[in-house]
Amino acid sequence: MHIELSPVAFVRNTRTEVIDDNWGAIISEIQLAEGIPEEAFDGITSFSHLHIIFYMDKVKDEKAIAQSRHPRNDVYLPRVGTYAQRNKNRPNKLGLSTVQLISRAGRTIRVKYLDAIDGTPILDIKPVMKNFQPKGTIREPHWTSDILKQYW
Amino acid sequence: MHIELSPVAFVRNTRTEVIDDNWGAIISEIQLAEGIPEEAFDGITSFSHLHIIFYMDKVKDEKAIAQSRHPRNDVYLPRVGTYAQRNKNRPNKLGLSTVQLISRAGRTIRVKYLDAIDGTPILDIKPVMKNFQPKGTIREPHWTSDILKQYW
Repeated sequence: MHIELSPVAFVRNTRTEVIDDNWGAIISEIQLAEGIPEEAFDGITSFSHLHIIFYMDKVKDEKAIAQSRHPRNDVYLPRVGTYAQRNKNRPNKLGLSTVQLISRAGRTIRVKYLDAIDGTPILDIKPVMKNFQPKGTIREPHWTSDILKQYW
Repeated sequence: MHIELSPVAFVRNTRTEVIDDNWGAIISEIQLAEGIPEEAFDGITSFSHLHIIFYMDKVKDEKAIAQSRHPRNDVYLPRVGTYAQRNKNRPNKLGLSTVQLISRAGRTIRVKYLDAIDGTPILDIKPVMKNFQPKGTIREPHWTSDILKQYW
């Protein structure tokens, strides 16, 4: 089964290279793609946060595979599968960020905490609702905080 | 720009029709697709929650458009754009659930709070990490809790 999707928006920011860390200072604009009407953003500022699903088009096809590996290739961390980590080398090359919405002007919104580089195609935008947040306490292994020390 | 994706897993559960409410009782299995190695799930049970990105293949193409509408077509609710709501009729037909992971056995995981029907193709699975949760307080309009009263 093949599924064909098209970008609904694009990322505009100052980060043009794929770098793992220090995303906290980056403010991004998200501009609706041609063919998507401006009214698609109506009412969006009544939400503080959004989920952004994007397509990491710079990932090479031969790296977009499911496997088991050491996070950030650090042999001191346990080997875990693709679906137990968030690294960019994965089938379908999808990224998911939970961003803070700063403002909207027409066909453009400004957001913080989007870890996607300039030009990245966006496939969907969904408002964060408390009813869809994780239910119960979040549990995760220790290595996640080790690798994310410099992330934001 | 056209982006071609393939399912990495499929949903198995008892819900075969598209219904908006009462998802809380549904336990789903997620089975890896052919071609995805079992090791892709290694280490996944060290996480309590997962984000599931899926493709709502039952949505008709003519309904998969960006627009402004009343949530659940309720004229007493404010008209808002596609990207200020989570309804299934949207460009690219993508769904996003934050599920609780119950268990894993080989190529299959069992989860709760997945609001996708039986047979739905899954495009990505990402572990929930506290570092990627919404930063600051979540703000949302009142109508979201009105329409979600019976959702879980």
